[in-house]
Amino acid sequence: METKRVKAYGMEAIDKPLEEMTIERRVLQPRDVEFEVLYCGICHSDLHQMKNDFGMTAYPIVPGHEIVGRVINIGSEVTDFKIGELAAVGCIVDSCQHCEHCAEGNEQFCDEFPTFSFNSPDKYLGGMTYGGFSKTYVCEDKYVLHMPDSLDLAAAAPLLCAGITVYSPLRHWNAGPGKKVGVLGIGGLGHLAIKIAKAMGAEVTVFTTSPAKVEDAKRMGADHAVLSTDEEAMKAYQKSLHFIIDTVSAKHNINMYLGLLKVDGAVVLVGLPPEPLEVGAFNVIMGRKSFSGSNIGGIAETQEMLNFCAEHNITADIELITIQDVNEAMDRLERGDVKYRFVIDMSSLTN
Amino acid sequence: METKRVKAYGMEAIDKPLEEMTIERRVLQPRDVEFEVLYCGICHSDLHQMKNDFGMTAYPIVPGHEIVGRVINIGSEVTDFKIGELAAVGCIVDSCQHCEHCAEGNEQFCDEFPTFSFNSPDKYLGGMTYGGFSKTYVCEDKYVLHMPDSLDLAAAAPLLCAGITVYSPLRHWNAGPGKKVGVLGIGGLGHLAIKIAKAMGAEVTVFTTSPAKVEDAKRMGADHAVLSTDEEAMKAYQKSLHFIIDTVSAKHNINMYLGLLKVDGAVVLVGLPPEPLEVGAFNVIMGRKSFSGSNIGGIAETQEMLNFCAEHNITADIELITIQDVNEAMDRLERGDVKYRFVIDMSSLTN
Repeated sequence: METKRVKAYGMEAIDKPLEEMTIERRVLQPRDVEFEVLYCGICHSDLHQMKNDFGMTAYPIVPGHEIVGRVINIGSEVTDFKIGELAAVGCIVDSCQHCEHCAEGNEQFCDEFPTFSFNSPDKYLGGMTYGGFSKTYVCEDKYVLHMPDSLDLAAAAPLLCAGITVYSPLRHWNAGPGKKVGVLGIGGLGHLAIKIAKAMGAEVTVFTTSPAKVEDAKRMGADHAVLSTDEEAMKAYQKSLHFIIDTVSAKHNINMYLGLLKVDGAVVLVGLPPEPLEVGAFNVIMGRKSFSGSNIGGIAETQEMLNFCAEHNITADIELITIQDVNEAMDRLERGDVKYRFVIDMSSLTN
Repeated sequence: METKRVKAYGMEAIDKPLEEMTIERRVLQPRDVEFEVLYCGICHSDLHQMKNDFGMTAYPIVPGHEIVGRVINIGSEVTDFKIGELAAVGCIVDSCQHCEHCAEGNEQFCDEFPTFSFNSPDKYLGGMTYGGFSKTYVCEDKYVLHMPDSLDLAAAAPLLCAGITVYSPLRHWNAGPGKKVGVLGIGGLGHLAIKIAKAMGAEVTVFTTSPAKVEDAKRMGADHAVLSTDEEAMKAYQKSLHFIIDTVSAKHNINMYLGLLKVDGAVVLVGLPPEPLEVGAFNVIMGRKSFSGSNIGGIAETQEMLNFCAEHNITADIELITIQDVNEAMDRLERGDVKYRFVIDMSSLTN
């Protein structure tokens, strides 16, 4: 298949920094949308993949899966996008399209595993997909999202992964009026969970180990913010919550949070702690509780989330950086030093 | 409050065997039903409480919470039971009756904690309740079940705890036609889970570490029985089950069973492993799966279960013993040497 050379930022090997490189993108196919990348968010899973934390990284790697931009070309069969419109791509850029999950719009559960926007086997070109740290992206229209014009485009980029990762379980577990929702951890995921759960009408209680983040949580709309290290404060929340969205990516005490749930409640993990978490039998048996997980969402639900965020004017709190600062940003991300999401202004990657 | 002296079998202290003793039962109150205990099942939690495994045992203790018999007396306000009818009591003999859970018939979730049939604070007499290893039982009519006449009464006794413990999650997680249900472990709980899930119309796959139990599982109605130590056989069941009822009371590998679930599936624990169980993040996140628990059921659901078992002629596989053999039976139960439930013929306890 014919390709075009495109400038990108990637890693040649695990011991190299991110640096400028040239990658190949396929030329436009009849159903493809090509767009110029304007902004790309940085998610902790970019860093995990760069460091091969999941043992699945094939170098060279071009990260980036919160990709927003403007359409510069469309294939002959594309009717849903026009040149000049805003467009976006999140985690999923392809799937089998014939299993029950794809048929239901849950491409994240595709029986043949979806193709992810980077470091994922590329059905068109062979090799691996290259992500959004690049000048352009090419993707079948079915997996391209419409970006609402009303949102700040840079601050909206993190919705493509962090946003859908929290929106989907909030919808699935019925966050809304009359529901008491806990948010565990305030980072890229947690701060969006607060805003989205609140916009859905839920009563939101945030749990954090960081006194400095208590005020931030309230500013973002949390009804209550609790220091999880304060035993007395925690006692007041026993058996009080319908469900808890758990964004913590380190080993932590799930049993303490199961105790905060009402009957039939669930702690829903969206973080990725590397070590297994311990669950005591009584903590799920008493009150028929669940320790569950959730992973991004399907394409249709991602579009629904973007429209919801536009309606409620929800974007991430971001630090906008240039591509030249990306290695320093990755170091800071690793230390948890970001409020609350880095986004790269891709105009800084000049042709 | 006036009391009557009743013969029973109990332990005076943790280092004593079960032996004949005399206990006090309250005299009949206006809403009370008094019944002669004809059969009483032995559940592993009787043994746990005898050995103070939960740290909550007050001696002397009279175990027994799968209690069936015949009504010998009714209070002046009782209209739902007649002298001479069959009756039964399971785990729950009282609750607050005014919290939301009691109002919904989920007394097992009572905000003030239900009163259990033995070793539980007795609101009438002070001290602790005494269980079914006794000649009679006295209980408010609201917590007394109607035993179907059509079932073998001795073999039906284990339904009062083991039966409802598996019936309730099977109903809650929608076991039925078109559903593939796994049963993990074949003991007192597991063997009833097989029979009940099958009667509900589910396709039942049993997982056991015991080759000797594979044939038993099929005789009980299981569609498939798999040795969980056989890696090749286990591979064939990846992502195939809607939910798994987990009856194992020892530490075991939950992640292996999460892998057998379809999207949105749940492993539902009804056993009581003393150590916490480890759950890997990816195992719940991929496929939005849950590790959940369930604990007995409410009174109305217990009656529904008894009626269901009568309709489908379901009872436990039992070994009927005399009260004089109860200590030996407890030793055998501790070694897992019972197929599949001991039931005491209480006529062996002579007045």
